Amino acid sequence: MKKNIAVFGLGSMGYGIGQSLLKAGHRTMGFDVAQTQVDKFVSEGGIAGDLSDTALSIDIVMIVVLNAEQTRSVLIGENGCLSYLKPGACVISCATVPPEFAKEMEQKCNAVGVHYLDAPISGGAVKAAAGQLSVMAAGKPDAFSAADPALQSTAEKVFRLGDAAGPGSAMKAVNQLLAGIHIASMAEAMTFGMTQGMDPNKIVEVISQCAGSSWMFENRAPHVVEGDYTPHSSVNIWPKDLGIVLDIAKASNFSAPLTAAALQQFVAAAGSGLGHEDDAAVAKVYARNAGVQLPEK
Amino acid sequence: MKKNIAVFGLGSMGYGIGQSLLKAGHRTMGFDVAQTQVDKFVSEGGIAGDLSDTALSIDIVMIVVLNAEQTRSVLIGENGCLSYLKPGACVISCATVPPEFAKEMEQKCNAVGVHYLDAPISGGAVKAAAGQLSVMAAGKPDAFSAADPALQSTAEKVFRLGDAAGPGSAMKAVNQLLAGIHIASMAEAMTFGMTQGMDPNKIVEVISQCAGSSWMFENRAPHVVEGDYTPHSSVNIWPKDLGIVLDIAKASNFSAPLTAAALQQFVAAAGSGLGHEDDAAVAKVYARNAGVQLPEK
Repeated sequence: MKKNIAVFGLGSMGYGIGQSLLKAGHRTMGFDVAQTQVDKFVSEGGIAGDLSDTALSIDIVMIVVLNAEQTRSVLIGENGCLSYLKPGACVISCATVPPEFAKEMEQKCNAVGVHYLDAPISGGAVKAAAGQLSVMAAGKPDAFSAADPALQSTAEKVFRLGDAAGPGSAMKAVNQLLAGIHIASMAEAMTFGMTQGMDPNKIVEVISQCAGSSWMFENRAPHVVEGDYTPHSSVNIWPKDLGIVLDIAKASNFSAPLTAAALQQFVAAAGSGLGHEDDAAVAKVYARNAGVQLPEK
Repeated sequence: MKKNIAVFGLGSMGYGIGQSLLKAGHRTMGFDVAQTQVDKFVSEGGIAGDLSDTALSIDIVMIVVLNAEQTRSVLIGENGCLSYLKPGACVISCATVPPEFAKEMEQKCNAVGVHYLDAPISGGAVKAAAGQLSVMAAGKPDAFSAADPALQSTAEKVFRLGDAAGPGSAMKAVNQLLAGIHIASMAEAMTFGMTQGMDPNKIVEVISQCAGSSWMFENRAPHVVEGDYTPHSSVNIWPKDLGIVLDIAKASNFSAPLTAAALQQFVAAAGSGLGHEDDAAVAKVYARNAGVQLPEK
């Protein structure tokens, strides 16, 4: 089951995925616009991506880029990889994209005999590197079979959500809607508590054991307490992902006021120059607006 | 350690607290404006509350009413219980109230030699009846000592948050801010997913295992899936509790946009006649606005 696998996008998620694939023994090519990331990947046993080297005979492509636009570019843009893939190869698309876009890409791939799996991922950089991602996957049964060796090596959980592209991206949108709101609500709660003179450590200790807790609260509130905004997942993710959610929602005449409110807080964070900090830094927007001093590292 | 304990308010939380106190062997009096609740409590071994029966010599009062106004009325309103209490008795105030109100009541009680514990509760009716509440408590060390027999019988966790009234109510406000937002975000996410043709069962199954999950999502989303809006905690709680949060926030010049957005959804739910349904019924506001059909029981 050792395969030739190409990973497009060696950011925090893609790099970890590449490492997991190498660990599992796959012949793994890394592609990224940043040559330093490619060099680093090569130093760990990866292969610098080169589509013209047709001898490589790619079995599986994992696309771990930022959004639909980049996914389109990788697949069918100028020098897009789809034109190099042999029939029977499989594209695993991991970016957060609209369900309609996933359907369109499935069609493009299928038209040339390439399988397509609509497979957004969740879990963060640490789980990516540990081969323990959650994958929200939808696609034709043949696409699942073709993708299996790569999924086995990178995912702890594969949710099988449908027999054609679309539902994977839809579920990811639901997850991002909640995750984005919960990060912003964590920031709102922590800073609100601090205006009442509460010790942020104590807030985390108590709320983690109460009905107000969330996965994101437990994961991100400690960043605020420690004043550590090293970007595990950056502020910039959220204007993008909540924007995708609202685009889908608008197209379905769905009013999403909490998503919209959360989006505005992340936009304000990005606008304040915090885009590349950890997304918990949205707390700084609240703190500044309220004249609250957050803990520092 | 068997005490004479009076419970004011035999609603879903207060009734369960009364049951837990009886189970622990305390001589327990129940007070409620609804005589049927008092009768039911008596049938389980409780005593119909009568403040004029001074022989009862109340040791501890637990006030489990709706808000600050009712708490004030029970304590220092016409025929308020504070005038009946002996020095050394203890008032445990469990309603969600502003921290400043808790401080004021502590002062009133202490002025006549009565202990006061600022002790909002969390956990819901089931945990109240099982003696497994979480209590966010603050008060003087003597108040904690005096309250101890009642807390032992009703609480699984007592968070000791400060040596004077205030921080208990502040922590409860932080918890309600998060819990209210998370219920509304659950509703927003579930109905949004349904506009994308997703099976609500599948949403709960997947999201519960992903980063978008929250305590409230896992607890309330199944109500939407089952179409069961039997009120474990009603919609009407939230305009009240999020209103308290926003009052405190405004007094501290704290801008809380997600809390405000969530509050509006609960106000719309109450305005649609859903006030006495389970708070998961806020999903009906989203569903109606989007023309989505929710599951029915």
